[in-house]
Amino acid sequence: MRKVYLDYSATTPLSEEVFEKMKPYFTECFGNANSLHSFGRDGAYAVDMARRKIAELLGAEPNEIYFTSGGTEADNWAVKGAAWARKEKGNHIITSAIEHHALLNTCESLEKQGFEVTYLPVYENGIVKSEDLKKAITDKTTVISVMLANNEIGSLQPIRELAAIAKEKHILFHTDAVQAIGSVPVNVKELGVDMLSLSGHKFYGPKGIGVLYIRKGVKTDKLIVGGHQERGMRGGTTNVPAVVGLAAAMETAVRDLDKNAKHIKAMRDRFVSAIEKEVPFVIYNGDREKRLPQNANFSFEFIEGESILYKLDLAGIACSSGSACSSGSLDPSHVLLAIGLPAEKAHGSIRFTFGKDTTPDEVDYVVGKVKETVEYLRGISPLFAEFKGGIQNV
Amino acid sequence: MRKVYLDYSATTPLSEEVFEKMKPYFTECFGNANSLHSFGRDGAYAVDMARRKIAELLGAEPNEIYFTSGGTEADNWAVKGAAWARKEKGNHIITSAIEHHALLNTCESLEKQGFEVTYLPVYENGIVKSEDLKKAITDKTTVISVMLANNEIGSLQPIRELAAIAKEKHILFHTDAVQAIGSVPVNVKELGVDMLSLSGHKFYGPKGIGVLYIRKGVKTDKLIVGGHQERGMRGGTTNVPAVVGLAAAMETAVRDLDKNAKHIKAMRDRFVSAIEKEVPFVIYNGDREKRLPQNANFSFEFIEGESILYKLDLAGIACSSGSACSSGSLDPSHVLLAIGLPAEKAHGSIRFTFGKDTTPDEVDYVVGKVKETVEYLRGISPLFAEFKGGIQNV
Repeated sequence: MRKVYLDYSATTPLSEEVFEKMKPYFTECFGNANSLHSFGRDGAYAVDMARRKIAELLGAEPNEIYFTSGGTEADNWAVKGAAWARKEKGNHIITSAIEHHALLNTCESLEKQGFEVTYLPVYENGIVKSEDLKKAITDKTTVISVMLANNEIGSLQPIRELAAIAKEKHILFHTDAVQAIGSVPVNVKELGVDMLSLSGHKFYGPKGIGVLYIRKGVKTDKLIVGGHQERGMRGGTTNVPAVVGLAAAMETAVRDLDKNAKHIKAMRDRFVSAIEKEVPFVIYNGDREKRLPQNANFSFEFIEGESILYKLDLAGIACSSGSACSSGSLDPSHVLLAIGLPAEKAHGSIRFTFGKDTTPDEVDYVVGKVKETVEYLRGISPLFAEFKGGIQNV
Repeated sequence: MRKVYLDYSATTPLSEEVFEKMKPYFTECFGNANSLHSFGRDGAYAVDMARRKIAELLGAEPNEIYFTSGGTEADNWAVKGAAWARKEKGNHIITSAIEHHALLNTCESLEKQGFEVTYLPVYENGIVKSEDLKKAITDKTTVISVMLANNEIGSLQPIRELAAIAKEKHILFHTDAVQAIGSVPVNVKELGVDMLSLSGHKFYGPKGIGVLYIRKGVKTDKLIVGGHQERGMRGGTTNVPAVVGLAAAMETAVRDLDKNAKHIKAMRDRFVSAIEKEVPFVIYNGDREKRLPQNANFSFEFIEGESILYKLDLAGIACSSGSACSSGSLDPSHVLLAIGLPAEKAHGSIRFTFGKDTTPDEVDYVVGKVKETVEYLRGISPLFAEFKGGIQNV
């Protein structure tokens, strides 16, 4: 059966080229990068080179790069660590209503420990307003965390503006850039952020590895303590092959950003135009311009997202309702609710995310299958029957 | 140059056979195991099979197995999670003085948050006494954590006995079994523990993956929150290839335990006998019997461990002073101090850890080089000169 993967925001295949670079560090140069002997030094050297490369790509210094097990750990560490380290100063955190659950659940756990959290609204376009941030800041605010790009609707936040407001008030600013690397330029200095999270497997790198950038001079608590790894800030034997893979994947992602983003945007736009032309009663969620090139998110009215997913999966097409991390939850997407979609429309939403290898032919195939699926499901939908009845009665 | 690796407790090379099993999950079956489509299901199925296998090997149920980024995260989660979840009941934690820093630093961070910690002594053999545990328990004790096998001197703790005491008092019992898997039998039911940590790269599996076993019914807080992964207990995209690798490596490690442990013990014993015969003024640290088969730890009097390491490294030999995780620290090993070694002898200590591929010829080569190195360093040691002078003066 033909298979088409349009779920690149959930995860990407590891690039063959990157995998080749990782391979020696599994079985040959297998040493513990903290060991004081030649086997260890081979690993330590590779990690050092990777750290320098990643720092350079982000506009940071090597000693501002901390390896984690992924974006989720980085988000947990960033916000919990910064909040606890500033507890004497204040207990107020500001974030947005459409953050990833890694961030929202971090805030929820901090609320249980006595912190207060303000969730900024995002309006129909899924974008935070600077004025709202300014209004939310109190003299107890110590940490602000707003994601660079949303994982469900792809909306891009005005991070530079928001970070500047935080800086003026001497409040720590963190951004979750997990979806952004390889899709939009990310430079910590230009953004003016104090902390930034990223994850390897979102840009054709390995799973199980991420980075937390912590600007030099920023004080923060640790999340995972143990040995002296990561300059004493994060315990645990360094995952050398994964670190090497993350750096290699990031180098390619940044090098090819313009080319890939252009192609991916073209595929996405071809898809969006076709869906809007071919399928009636659809809502294109999020901002039309200020969004990730790879992201399309549609609400198909009168039908259930899960049913669409299921039918498309039978046709070999991989896409997503909400984020992969939320699968298993029956709640409608918090992101779609936050942009003002009523629950029943949020339930009928599907995210299609495009990759560097997506072809026009794949796009057209998926458009055809989506059209067929939506027609079929509306054909058996009582809601749609009622709606049509309503129209006829007018 | 000839190279001999005798640092298997720091890390092991990934087995080629295990790597072959992991490979498809990097580039082909790359889906996010939480995704509701065929790409995701391939990953989810592999993770499910791995979880069942690991559960079976530990004598646990699949839903008692939680994947983490390694042993350090598992230790952090176990003790922080259990302590916080029982905060209403009490704030007292008991551990041993010779735990890995993943555990000790976890306790230290809890002390800063208002918990009290008792560190049980271990005596000359490096082993905790049941009576000491009984005496340490108060009505505020909620968590006990004692490692199954020590990473520096290999001493094996009477976990079954200690866990039974905890159980009688309704106190949660955790054990760090990171060094034990593949070296001694580990069955959670037979041990009677509530939680157990392990790490893939210690038994020829991949780095960056570990397990926390949490007995069904045990209440605990989360460490890393986010998506619904690991039944909502640990957020972060599942590291599918690493999970597959951990299960495959553990299966082999448990299957070959008797054969490997017998060979490894023979190599270790050959080494220990030869060193004790060939090199004067050495102390064999830890218990002679109740220790891991792979571990030998010697204090070479009058000289510095770092200098020995350095000279052996120049001869292509990899071993360790203390644990790899502590490298970078100038403090003498807390484990050697806890077994009563004075700081200057602790400073002259080296850990040699043997593996399934260690040969008698390698052992003999290392014995020769150790002898040569120790003689050379003592030849330039003022302490040794003073000692010899002292002897001559008697």
